[in-house]
Amino acid sequence: MNLLGIVESVNSFTYGEKPNDLYILRSHDGKQPLGYVVPDVAKELNKFPNVFQVDDDLVQIKISSNLDTIEKRNRGFKEVADSLNESGFIKGWRNELFIIHYPAHEPYVYLERAFSPLLGIVMYGIHANCYIPKELSSTGEIQFWIPRRSKTKSTHPGMLDNTVGGGLGHPFGVFDTLIKESEEEAGLERSFVKKNAKAVGTVSYTLCDKQFNYGYELGLIQPEVQYIYDIPCDESIVPKPNDNEVECFHLMSFEEVWTNLLDEQFKPSCALVIIDFLTRHGFVNSENEPDYVEILAKLHRLPPFPLR
Amino acid sequence: MNLLGIVESVNSFTYGEKPNDLYILRSHDGKQPLGYVVPDVAKELNKFPNVFQVDDDLVQIKISSNLDTIEKRNRGFKEVADSLNESGFIKGWRNELFIIHYPAHEPYVYLERAFSPLLGIVMYGIHANCYIPKELSSTGEIQFWIPRRSKTKSTHPGMLDNTVGGGLGHPFGVFDTLIKESEEEAGLERSFVKKNAKAVGTVSYTLCDKQFNYGYELGLIQPEVQYIYDIPCDESIVPKPNDNEVECFHLMSFEEVWTNLLDEQFKPSCALVIIDFLTRHGFVNSENEPDYVEILAKLHRLPPFPLR
Repeated sequence: MNLLGIVESVNSFTYGEKPNDLYILRSHDGKQPLGYVVPDVAKELNKFPNVFQVDDDLVQIKISSNLDTIEKRNRGFKEVADSLNESGFIKGWRNELFIIHYPAHEPYVYLERAFSPLLGIVMYGIHANCYIPKELSSTGEIQFWIPRRSKTKSTHPGMLDNTVGGGLGHPFGVFDTLIKESEEEAGLERSFVKKNAKAVGTVSYTLCDKQFNYGYELGLIQPEVQYIYDIPCDESIVPKPNDNEVECFHLMSFEEVWTNLLDEQFKPSCALVIIDFLTRHGFVNSENEPDYVEILAKLHRLPPFPLR
Repeated sequence: MNLLGIVESVNSFTYGEKPNDLYILRSHDGKQPLGYVVPDVAKELNKFPNVFQVDDDLVQIKISSNLDTIEKRNRGFKEVADSLNESGFIKGWRNELFIIHYPAHEPYVYLERAFSPLLGIVMYGIHANCYIPKELSSTGEIQFWIPRRSKTKSTHPGMLDNTVGGGLGHPFGVFDTLIKESEEEAGLERSFVKKNAKAVGTVSYTLCDKQFNYGYELGLIQPEVQYIYDIPCDESIVPKPNDNEVECFHLMSFEEVWTNLLDEQFKPSCALVIIDFLTRHGFVNSENEPDYVEILAKLHRLPPFPLR
């Protein structure tokens, strides 16, 4: 597949107007769109009218006006999530809290991570690539530390990944999460990551996630933002699997990364992080990539919701 | 002003639905939106019904169905541009050709550069920053070669700029334009630029350009894409004004660039290129910039038109 095809396979939600049957989650004051909810989930949320007021005519789900403090919203969302977990409607309970922000930067409600995709709210994560710059590489060329995901992972088992990746759960900040996940997933020392990791931007997209089947042809609609770090290192730094997320790490040349990328061997969202790296480092440019402008715009989508 | 404010002062056209009175320029087959046209320009184009069919009810301007080859379109657009130039409606004739693409990557019509803003088509340019990385800098810190625009320039006289910048005119490619403008504007040798310039992405935005006053409160609507290059160098490389565009070049520390940026001393679109640099190099990051995600998304806007 070509690069634009890979980007569009992840950033797969339509630009322009939303599908008519897709519900918008709205704040308790009715003012602010917060997420995308598919019809079968809306039907389920309709069973909890004290928390979610489902309006089929307006195709929206308003958080109850009574939930006018963060404490009340936390309680309301927890009741619904617990109930949907017991009934088996929520899959893969994580016991980890994600946050909806409203207004921007202000926590509006804390909710179970596994409940978040059902509400189509913006989800945040960090991704980092450990690489050996050519001036530090024994081959004289850039090399990348690429892990293969464990065959027992529930999502994308056995696929290639970024050196480090993870969701942003309460109460951890962005850089904290990077440090924590670098240790947990790749056995990288905290002091090494603190010193060498460089913030280089974000990748943001909205996917139609078919892995969650709630009867909607597109799958759940999920806006995601990944905070991206480059971690340059020399060959003395060898990431090692430290939990059961990763099977092993391989040192790959640009050519190996490139072949695996076009061959769709990377977990799709991780492929976007690789493409972002390749554009920032000049490997992919206007002279060798006809879809350059479109790829870069589609790697940086603005969700129509308040942001972290 | 804060960084998000600077970005939004340039990427100032509304996200979501367009204003009701803003016309859409459409291809001769009626299928493809190509640009934004403000009402007073639409009224003027209505005088050329063989080229532009203005429909006030649909709020669109269709290129005449008869113009079904690029040669016919080139001739038609030239007639209109020449006439509007004679009447003084087009200002600042450049005698340089820009291109509308349709389908993506295919030239659809060549038109005078000064006519392009009136049609609100996507315009392309290159911008580059020459900088001295800290490991090559006598101060031990990064330094930037920042020019001050000539006081006689018609747009943004006396403001700070990127080391190199220029529009992408036919028949020059992206990298060719970089090489050409680096020589013309900054006296940088072609061989040096060829060897050291690194493609690092794009900045794209849609501005409401009030400097062109055609009676529309927002100003003309202009989607722009800038191809961005970093040019690392040492202190032996000294850019010098080579035409009348630039008054002089200053070597600035990060602090000087930062102060001038927040103080709105940079030409606004150039400020975006500086902000993009600062995000890619870790100076602006999620820990020190609350609007980080929004800034990065708004630096990479997807125009709803076919791209180069």
